[in-house]
Amino acid sequence: MRQATTILSFATPGRGFTEITRDVARWVAETGIGEGLASLLCRHTSASLLIQENAARAVRSDLAAWFERLAPEGEHYAHDDEGPDDMPAHLRATLTGVSLAIPVIGGHLALGTWQGVYLAEHRHAPHRREIAIHLSGE
Amino acid sequence: MRQATTILSFATPGRGFTEITRDVARWVAETGIGEGLASLLCRHTSASLLIQENAARAVRSDLAAWFERLAPEGEHYAHDDEGPDDMPAHLRATLTGVSLAIPVIGGHLALGTWQGVYLAEHRHAPHRREIAIHLSGE
Amino acid sequence: MRQATTILSFATPGRGFTEITRDVARWVAETGIGEGLASLLCRHTSASLLIQENAARAVRSDLAAWFERLAPEGEHYAHDDEGPDDMPAHLRATLTGVSLAIPVIGGHLALGTWQGVYLAEHRHAPHRREIAIHLSGE
Repeated sequence: MRQATTILSFATPGRGFTEITRDVARWVAETGIGEGLASLLCRHTSASLLIQENAARAVRSDLAAWFERLAPEGEHYAHDDEGPDDMPAHLRATLTGVSLAIPVIGGHLALGTWQGVYLAEHRHAPHRREIAIHLSGE
Repeated sequence: MRQATTILSFATPGRGFTEITRDVARWVAETGIGEGLASLLCRHTSASLLIQENAARAVRSDLAAWFERLAPEGEHYAHDDEGPDDMPAHLRATLTGVSLAIPVIGGHLALGTWQGVYLAEHRHAPHRREIAIHLSGE
Repeated sequence: MRQATTILSFATPGRGFTEITRDVARWVAETGIGEGLASLLCRHTSASLLIQENAARAVRSDLAAWFERLAPEGEHYAHDDEGPDDMPAHLRATLTGVSLAIPVIGGHLALGTWQGVYLAEHRHAPHRREIAIHLSGE
């Protein structure tokens, strides 16, 4: 067994979902490791990672509306150093989490047919976000 | 160190929780790896994985009621291709996540006394669900 | 590649967040593994793990208030064997999850500048909580 690590960087256009499945799969393929485990960590507290449906776009708009309901902007937060979208961004990042592990089987990420890996940006403004990745296998 | 991978398949009876701890533990035991890490990925966007209390059944009914409150069925979703339980299922899968990693120590999954691994089915109808598992260790 | 496992134990002062980043980093450093993956499992169903902002304290008080809103104490739970904070604790543990994987790169946990690893205690009373950790690498 051997391992590889990298940090991939993504420009987000502000609040929304950026699919990173192909970027992760390309890096995994480059390592030559065909059986193993890919572990991803989003190195931020206002952006996060999730695996969700990659076909119907309406799933992402419904997901965004749900985030608004569960962690709305408002005057009720003690923490607003960076504006009204600051604390809701931390809450939404907590909701989805920043850590994912994906088995690699037969040369491919073992995702289901309808699964995509998404970087969720929770701030209004565009940001540059880093994903640390560890891959072990053979 | 060495590794093993598999895909376990489970029939769910529709919405609810199926405990899969023993199935996972049995496969880990068969590999002969007694120290390592077991990583699980639910390959679906309307079913998910969680670790929760395995004793009191009321915990699961309260959990199901909580899912209903946080991600209710209704007319307010843009995405309803497969019916009113379609989008709430995606939201509930997002809430719990689809990826888990469990250390294996001394020949056993290092779960706490009261922890069980559950496959959560979020659709009304029965489904067949696949869990991809990666195990590395020695 | 080689691996190491341990179980770290923490005393929590009751409901709140205990930062465990340094404890985890210290153990990782002691193993001499400088490139790899550290996987953490909280072995409880009323406490959980999350990665969140480690600078502004107000983030944690807002986070605690948000847990209260999303999973309040009340009379509406079937499960209350251990009191009114029993079931809300299970729900909050489900919200954040009990499993995290963190790449180790260049001798350090590859966390972002503002990220800390927190053990979230969801019961009112102080508890002793165990975190199982697996580290593989070289």
